[in-house]
Amino acid sequence: MIKVAVVGGTGYTGVELLRLLALHPQVELQAVTSRAEAGTAVCDLFPSLRGYLDLAFSEPDPERLGACDLVFFATPNGVAMTLAPELLRRGARLIDLAADFRLRDASVWEQWYGMPHACPELLAEAVYGLPEVNRASIAQARLVANPGCYPTAVQLGLLPLVESGRVDVDTLIADCKSGVSGAGRGASVATLLAEAGENFKAYAVAGHRHLPEIRQGLSLAAGKAVGLTFVPHLTPMIRGIHATLYARSASGVGDVQALFAERYADEPFVDVLPPGSHPETRSVKGANACRIALHPLDDGHTLVVLSVIDNLVKGAAGQAVQNMNIMFGCDERSGLRLPGLIP
Amino acid sequence: MIKVAVVGGTGYTGVELLRLLALHPQVELQAVTSRAEAGTAVCDLFPSLRGYLDLAFSEPDPERLGACDLVFFATPNGVAMTLAPELLRRGARLIDLAADFRLRDASVWEQWYGMPHACPELLAEAVYGLPEVNRASIAQARLVANPGCYPTAVQLGLLPLVESGRVDVDTLIADCKSGVSGAGRGASVATLLAEAGENFKAYAVAGHRHLPEIRQGLSLAAGKAVGLTFVPHLTPMIRGIHATLYARSASGVGDVQALFAERYADEPFVDVLPPGSHPETRSVKGANACRIALHPLDDGHTLVVLSVIDNLVKGAAGQAVQNMNIMFGCDERSGLRLPGLIP
Amino acid sequence: MIKVAVVGGTGYTGVELLRLLALHPQVELQAVTSRAEAGTAVCDLFPSLRGYLDLAFSEPDPERLGACDLVFFATPNGVAMTLAPELLRRGARLIDLAADFRLRDASVWEQWYGMPHACPELLAEAVYGLPEVNRASIAQARLVANPGCYPTAVQLGLLPLVESGRVDVDTLIADCKSGVSGAGRGASVATLLAEAGENFKAYAVAGHRHLPEIRQGLSLAAGKAVGLTFVPHLTPMIRGIHATLYARSASGVGDVQALFAERYADEPFVDVLPPGSHPETRSVKGANACRIALHPLDDGHTLVVLSVIDNLVKGAAGQAVQNMNIMFGCDERSGLRLPGLIP
Amino acid sequence: MIKVAVVGGTGYTGVELLRLLALHPQVELQAVTSRAEAGTAVCDLFPSLRGYLDLAFSEPDPERLGACDLVFFATPNGVAMTLAPELLRRGARLIDLAADFRLRDASVWEQWYGMPHACPELLAEAVYGLPEVNRASIAQARLVANPGCYPTAVQLGLLPLVESGRVDVDTLIADCKSGVSGAGRGASVATLLAEAGENFKAYAVAGHRHLPEIRQGLSLAAGKAVGLTFVPHLTPMIRGIHATLYARSASGVGDVQALFAERYADEPFVDVLPPGSHPETRSVKGANACRIALHPLDDGHTLVVLSVIDNLVKGAAGQAVQNMNIMFGCDERSGLRLPGLIP
Repeated sequence: MIKVAVVGGTGYTGVELLRLLALHPQVELQAVTSRAEAGTAVCDLFPSLRGYLDLAFSEPDPERLGACDLVFFATPNGVAMTLAPELLRRGARLIDLAADFRLRDASVWEQWYGMPHACPELLAEAVYGLPEVNRASIAQARLVANPGCYPTAVQLGLLPLVESGRVDVDTLIADCKSGVSGAGRGASVATLLAEAGENFKAYAVAGHRHLPEIRQGLSLAAGKAVGLTFVPHLTPMIRGIHATLYARSASGVGDVQALFAERYADEPFVDVLPPGSHPETRSVKGANACRIALHPLDDGHTLVVLSVIDNLVKGAAGQAVQNMNIMFGCDERSGLRLPGLIP
Repeated sequence: MIKVAVVGGTGYTGVELLRLLALHPQVELQAVTSRAEAGTAVCDLFPSLRGYLDLAFSEPDPERLGACDLVFFATPNGVAMTLAPELLRRGARLIDLAADFRLRDASVWEQWYGMPHACPELLAEAVYGLPEVNRASIAQARLVANPGCYPTAVQLGLLPLVESGRVDVDTLIADCKSGVSGAGRGASVATLLAEAGENFKAYAVAGHRHLPEIRQGLSLAAGKAVGLTFVPHLTPMIRGIHATLYARSASGVGDVQALFAERYADEPFVDVLPPGSHPETRSVKGANACRIALHPLDDGHTLVVLSVIDNLVKGAAGQAVQNMNIMFGCDERSGLRLPGLIP
Repeated sequence: MIKVAVVGGTGYTGVELLRLLALHPQVELQAVTSRAEAGTAVCDLFPSLRGYLDLAFSEPDPERLGACDLVFFATPNGVAMTLAPELLRRGARLIDLAADFRLRDASVWEQWYGMPHACPELLAEAVYGLPEVNRASIAQARLVANPGCYPTAVQLGLLPLVESGRVDVDTLIADCKSGVSGAGRGASVATLLAEAGENFKAYAVAGHRHLPEIRQGLSLAAGKAVGLTFVPHLTPMIRGIHATLYARSASGVGDVQALFAERYADEPFVDVLPPGSHPETRSVKGANACRIALHPLDDGHTLVVLSVIDNLVKGAAGQAVQNMNIMFGCDERSGLRLPGLIP
Repeated sequence: MIKVAVVGGTGYTGVELLRLLALHPQVELQAVTSRAEAGTAVCDLFPSLRGYLDLAFSEPDPERLGACDLVFFATPNGVAMTLAPELLRRGARLIDLAADFRLRDASVWEQWYGMPHACPELLAEAVYGLPEVNRASIAQARLVANPGCYPTAVQLGLLPLVESGRVDVDTLIADCKSGVSGAGRGASVATLLAEAGENFKAYAVAGHRHLPEIRQGLSLAAGKAVGLTFVPHLTPMIRGIHATLYARSASGVGDVQALFAERYADEPFVDVLPPGSHPETRSVKGANACRIALHPLDDGHTLVVLSVIDNLVKGAAGQAVQNMNIMFGCDERSGLRLPGLIP
């Protein structure tokens, strides 16, 4: 059994992680921390877990956390980096679901996240936890940076293209739509039902924190800097990301269906749909899956890729459990055999 | 032209009031106040009003407000009462859309609202602004207490019954469902789309502030204290209240269709539907209307009344404008000829 | 392994049943039938099941179905009764998720469902599949009538009261709110998002088909005919039923918290919440659970019971799997250890 | 007064048109036709109009329709063209809210709409009713083809760019998101709340009927054929279209804010927002407005344009009324002074 703790269990990625861990046959949950809710039973905050989880939130205690095999951070940006060095020293392995270890360049990180990085020396060691790219490194990693939700949907939709040099990488476009759970469980006016319901809008067109993360991943895959326009939108639903990706190729995009099928043939959680499909976000609601469809247009030069995930699962907690499975030698599907909830 | 000011224009009742006032042919809007947003153009906060309103939020200035013919308070509970005495002294008339002047008994008010009342001496003068009950008094009033949203839907659905003694008033039940805009525009976790969407729940079963207000109104109409069970629920939509009302009569409920038709025959904003109807909240979305349907059951003793309003219109801003029309001798429909928005 | 077939797998109870059966460790799914979709891969209609189910819809073949251990009918009302006699004769056991075998009295059934009953002789044998009432009979049954969604929520919320004689059974009220999936997957104007979204309404106040079913169950429990007013409402969400139940007791309701706690102490899927709770439908989204909270009012004579289920799980497919577990001697929780999906 | 008839008043564009016409001070509504609902009071189908409209649906009678000054067709595609020649002959002017007269080339029309055109000889005369382009022609027109919803949002967002030659017109991209009312009021599975709610998907990526319409309009404006990729998406809300438009310029996009401000300076219903804005669809809910924001990116070569409308108003019924105002010499704003409904 893997001894596991969750730091910061009161947000949406936290409760989703608890749902998945509660069902995982190889996991023994030791602690769920929250400074604000310390002492409260987890199930009082999340009655959906009644009967599945019998723990109270506790203060984060480095000694107790450090004694675990694995500590998940489902905290706001900037928290994991303050505890990571000590916990690693004590022998725990870490998966950070926030952004602290996603960018390799500390100065870029500091520019986008607006604070000094507390342990830049760990950035080189941290493994970017996208199993479809870094499976072998994840298996060995002490510290895994779980990818962001948009970056997961966009990278999985573009990787086969940029890895193979099949498209021009200077003019990629990612038009992304997210449900509001991506904004977190904090009190805020903008994501009230009365504000975000029956409404659709773009936001952060001038620059979103996930842009450097996506660019970093795609540039590594392309072997050179990519040019990407990224426009996120808020859509009036709770879960789900839909990435509509546009790529062009002066020489023609070729048989992209075969390209994707081959690239993801052995991936348990990437599902390339038949030609002509339109994946729905609800097909992955609650599921650790990315569904992708390819639409090469009649002009022969333009490709539209549709990529959907549940932002809280393959875009956060599910991917974290998938990383844990890889790190600890479990079947990668363990605890993640959950079809999407339709309707 | 009526010179009008709105104190507290940043909430949902505020912006709805501004929408209605911007179209009102007899109104000249002088000021919209907000301490927090002073200096901001109203349209920067509410772009829907671009082209209709060219004012900036200002600090509430008693002198300027007092020079108006009418001041609306679309503020949180407890604000209007601090300014009311001075503004009345300066000659302005007031309509409070909050609860400060709704209850006649200051001690009951203080118990439910958890603060001392700043001007209990005005409670006797304040007129409860339900035009279907108090039209004549409203016309003369200096100070109108605009009813709450639940109290409007419930009272309009029960008044003909309790006024006529047609039902037993000891066991009335009001099972009410509200859209989330009733909770206001403040940042809060409970009304996030990701919390209140795809979810239904009751709240405050042990006691809601609108309970004493409804009881007061119905007891006045009945000529004796009524017994009412009131259970409010939150439903995953933005606007609308649906009150499902249960009443019993040991002697039989009689021809309630005729009773209601007669009671509301001259009411411009109460619409008694044909027998067998099921009013939809969307039929009054954006409209100053209450639609009512009557379902006497086969047992002859039980009556189900269905009553719907838009909580922000007939349940707040629209009713306030209706009161203004009455107070200033305008056609009661002026500025309120707006059908519901379907779909 | 239990050899199982699903007749009528294209509706919402069908796809939910497939989701649950695909994960069930003791089930071997033999066939999923649909006349309209025969030949289509199940996953083409429901991509959420890709990777979990590798069957195509087939024509219903009595021989093949009769060779199964268990046949679920997730068909419209009136279908199961036409096939039941033959399948029983061939040795299969049946669970009908529709209404064909729910009412004991064929003439009452025919009145409410508007067609002659094809096999009234089976009504006496059929067991009403509410495990909390009929567990022992279900274990032995050849033919189980899976309860309706409203009847499950209402009966579980009232049973301890009527069984114990704690309340007056002549004036029970069930004010129920359902998500739109309860209306099924058929094309219809009334449940379009543009009709049912941002809208709330009551329907069928004059009489709903679940009324005789609830009355039958409660009358059996009370030992006499009960008087129940039942008003269903449509709420703008997909899954979930919230029943708000009103009961009165001339002699006082007593300690209902203890009554319910004791009544459901050994029930794996009924969760009595602490006093003062307000259960949310989302706490059971996708989960086979009924959560109940009790609110005795200050007058000492009125009790409000709040009861929530997922209409497609404890109100349909989950309860059917629970019944299967009981019928075949599996752990009653088998395949049903799934917490609600929050958010 | 303009004598007006509406053919096909039972759909969403129909009821929205009736809402607007009911309030229009220069309109006298003579007839609302529907073969299916002939004899039914309009308000029985749409209770929101109770008190505003006292007509019953009637059979379409060419004589009666032909005697009107103006006939609106809010019918499915292919209906207006069967009646247009006769009604024009009788002296009525026509506005078709469907697609029958939008494309100049009958063979292209027939290819996309899958039926022979009944009166191709009228295509040359028909005026494409986008006032921002064809105001003068509309004023004189006998027959106006009201633009589609997507084409309105996309063209208004791109016209200043292609008219001025400011961007490369070979690689334009329109990523569009629509509320479900765009799919109409017909019974259908795909737009049930239980299907389209909590879900996001692209559709018709291979080719949507609005593509040739947009291409035609932009090509006329550019003076040459444009290359446009158009991907429509369905978003879980009722009203609203959000077009996210991507354009590139090898030579730099220049001061597009000034370009748009000048182009639309005199347009009553196009609102160019300040730099950095993110228009919300709800800001135009129920309003005849198009709000546009411009985001030139840091690379100097890429421009993102955000354009929002209410698909039923500026994208259909409101634009039709605007066209009527132009055709009959009314103030263009007449009957259209309605701010968006927030929240």
